[in-house]
Amino acid sequence: MEAQTQNKVKVFSEWYNELVIKADLAENSAVRGCMVIKPYGYAIWEKMQAILDKMFKDTGHVNAYFPLFIPKSFLSKEADHVEGFAKECAVVTHYRLKASPDGKGVVVDETAKLEEELIVRPTSETIIWSTYKNWIQSYRDLPLLINQWANVVRWEMRTRLFLRTTEFLWQEGHTAHATAEEAVEETMKMLDVYSEFAEKYMAIPVIKGIKTANERFAGALETYCIEALMQDGKALQAGTSHFLGQNFAKAFDVKFAGKDGKLDYVWATSWGVSTRLMGALVMTHCDDKGLIIPPRLAPHQVVIVPIYKGDEEFKKISAKATDIKKALEDKGIRVKFDNRDTHKPGWKFAEYELRGVPLRIAIGPRDVDNGTVEMARRDTFEKKTFQQENIAEVISNLLEEIQQSLYNKALKNREANTIEVNSYEEFKKLLDDKGGFLLAHWDGTPETEEKIKEETKATIRCIPLNNKPEEGKCIYSGKPSNQRVIFARAY
Amino acid sequence: MEAQTQNKVKVFSEWYNELVIKADLAENSAVRGCMVIKPYGYAIWEKMQAILDKMFKDTGHVNAYFPLFIPKSFLSKEADHVEGFAKECAVVTHYRLKASPDGKGVVVDETAKLEEELIVRPTSETIIWSTYKNWIQSYRDLPLLINQWANVVRWEMRTRLFLRTTEFLWQEGHTAHATAEEAVEETMKMLDVYSEFAEKYMAIPVIKGIKTANERFAGALETYCIEALMQDGKALQAGTSHFLGQNFAKAFDVKFAGKDGKLDYVWATSWGVSTRLMGALVMTHCDDKGLIIPPRLAPHQVVIVPIYKGDEEFKKISAKATDIKKALEDKGIRVKFDNRDTHKPGWKFAEYELRGVPLRIAIGPRDVDNGTVEMARRDTFEKKTFQQENIAEVISNLLEEIQQSLYNKALKNREANTIEVNSYEEFKKLLDDKGGFLLAHWDGTPETEEKIKEETKATIRCIPLNNKPEEGKCIYSGKPSNQRVIFARAY
Repeated sequence: MEAQTQNKVKVFSEWYNELVIKADLAENSAVRGCMVIKPYGYAIWEKMQAILDKMFKDTGHVNAYFPLFIPKSFLSKEADHVEGFAKECAVVTHYRLKASPDGKGVVVDETAKLEEELIVRPTSETIIWSTYKNWIQSYRDLPLLINQWANVVRWEMRTRLFLRTTEFLWQEGHTAHATAEEAVEETMKMLDVYSEFAEKYMAIPVIKGIKTANERFAGALETYCIEALMQDGKALQAGTSHFLGQNFAKAFDVKFAGKDGKLDYVWATSWGVSTRLMGALVMTHCDDKGLIIPPRLAPHQVVIVPIYKGDEEFKKISAKATDIKKALEDKGIRVKFDNRDTHKPGWKFAEYELRGVPLRIAIGPRDVDNGTVEMARRDTFEKKTFQQENIAEVISNLLEEIQQSLYNKALKNREANTIEVNSYEEFKKLLDDKGGFLLAHWDGTPETEEKIKEETKATIRCIPLNNKPEEGKCIYSGKPSNQRVIFARAY
Repeated sequence: MEAQTQNKVKVFSEWYNELVIKADLAENSAVRGCMVIKPYGYAIWEKMQAILDKMFKDTGHVNAYFPLFIPKSFLSKEADHVEGFAKECAVVTHYRLKASPDGKGVVVDETAKLEEELIVRPTSETIIWSTYKNWIQSYRDLPLLINQWANVVRWEMRTRLFLRTTEFLWQEGHTAHATAEEAVEETMKMLDVYSEFAEKYMAIPVIKGIKTANERFAGALETYCIEALMQDGKALQAGTSHFLGQNFAKAFDVKFAGKDGKLDYVWATSWGVSTRLMGALVMTHCDDKGLIIPPRLAPHQVVIVPIYKGDEEFKKISAKATDIKKALEDKGIRVKFDNRDTHKPGWKFAEYELRGVPLRIAIGPRDVDNGTVEMARRDTFEKKTFQQENIAEVISNLLEEIQQSLYNKALKNREANTIEVNSYEEFKKLLDDKGGFLLAHWDGTPETEEKIKEETKATIRCIPLNNKPEEGKCIYSGKPSNQRVIFARAY
């Protein structure tokens, strides 16, 4: 798909919803704003989890689990934090139901009211830092490098599958350090982990940057992020890493004794990615036929479809397919042999295109005779006939090629839609015409940022970390500016 | 530890709490009844998860994720189910907080009241079967074999770390089938998976059995279970597998068209194990010094402790330890080299005994000279000196031996405390003296079962699947009985 006009944006948006459902990734549930992640979608998420989990452990982190509920009073302890989350909280007020007086169903038992309401965690800084208080006494207890895989709830008014749901799955890292420098270093290290994950595994190019004050996490001193550009010209924040300073340590009175015996508040970071990444994956790589899953995340990297008439042909082809499957699995390739007789090959072709399986192998009677297979790439639809010899080697290389090619295509799309803009008129026109990452001068004030957002729905996605200084004038206020920032409409 | 008198039971119970906290497995949180699973405890849980997840997948199941919240009305749709869970539900009634009028903190925003309250899932049958209604139309959609890893909440009044907590982690399988036979087969298959997991990985011998009506899952036609005996003579239900019949299909109107085109309700199972297993692990294998983690679940199977004076010795020993670590890791053994200079060897020895690391290697200067290491088994405290040659092979075998030996010891304990009882007097005396699995005749009525429970706190743990028919008289009512059942006081 090409970058979009406003009409195309609408079409893309509808296509997205339809695709997520049709390709069996997820669907809306009976509970407003909550999704069901279906087995195929969940299998991709599991792949992401496994890779990220290993990257976290390789960088010295361990997993733990903290309560789902947060006492209401905890939220208020950090002023910005409560301001940011209070308006979208699921609140538990009672702990029992009883039979309804009319005998139909159950009602809340008013005698079972909680003394203090509990909030279903929207994020866990408060409950975790209230715990860290007991875990940290001295510099010897630091750094504390902990991650949690969990579900969180934010009561969103407008929800979309994966992109914005009331409940979502994520991981949240929460680390504690003796110095500001160490905490900043950790913040950047995890930003790098996220960026490497997005680019190497999801095949999504991202820009590493820093958020403006307006877009900062509620309670952070600085929020770093990775930003990706979707095919419709809209941006998507794919992960954030926060330097929290001593805010939460102060809120929960977490001090440590340094080597010199002096007490100081602990320095903190937090960082997270969520099932939102599934949305990014779909919107970066899909086409009119459906999903395209990068090989490194594909639950099935290869599907084998037999093409036959009658039992005898099926038997011959099946034996061949089973051999090939075995050869591929021995090389660690994830492969499915779809031998169902309830569906025709054409139906299967369409189905696996929809689901984005990177490579399809078709085997017909002639292939058995010739010792060949027909291979079709999902990303380019290119078909080629290969000898069955060394097929595992060939496929292994092809999968790597597809992985790289998907990344290159997404990068090309982003580059083509990253545009330097020098006037507000041009800015507005581009946003409406095709979106993209618009590089523009900004006077550095929250007021200007806010006005541009009100007037155009575009926000500052980030100030890129590798930004070059450049003198210029703010496209809105005309005031001086010394660098361009990235504006975009965003998911 | 030996089987316990009542006083010992109390001591054991206190020791359990203390041990879970001291060994860094878990602790109580600021939220009543909810625990924090600490990194060491979570690392063991992750091992359990990985093994179980593979076993589920190997038996044809896939993972998915369903909402945390259940509309209140859903719970009422299955009469027994709501009866079983209504009294312990966390109820979400509001979705927003606002600044408190007095300016201090936040209060519930009464204008943001939900039209229908949401229940934090205590188990997911209802939300899942409301979803399955859309997924199942024909026999071609069956069987549906889905598992979910999730957190659940049951508002328990008396909680204990791992054994009974308001929030806990678990997996819940929910399958749908075309026939009763198939569903029963699935129920039994998963019971076997649980039993294999408990015995082969956790080194806990279990009895497979069927629950009496009183002890059945709320909404099931039959509940199967695995029951284990702890060191204090109390029983622990370690996993359950339910044959749900067509109860939930009827409650949510889930029908399928058979091959003959006729509509029928779908047959269901559900099955689960939880972080409760962590409690079983501790109470089966701990001793006065702390935990003993079976090698297959141990985050660290081996710890290497250097014993040295001065830098030069340390360097030599360190080089040797690093070699050994590498050799062990190459063989897939999980090993930690504790080279901290902040703690003495004696402290480390005690620490790893407390944490239950199966094997400890100590290396001193003489070991370097002699090419030896000293190895100590956690389970028997046996110490032996080994040559460094083939050390990986030796350790690999030793770990297997420890795994088997832990199982044998637990089995011996269970056998010594599984006792045929023929009178109610003897029954009560044994319960008070040392507990255990008491095999007794029962007249088969819920009334008798209830009375025995009231008078002795013992429940029927299960009717063993491999039970031999035997004529006898109910120990309570004297009425005829044709088999013994297992009574015990239980966690």
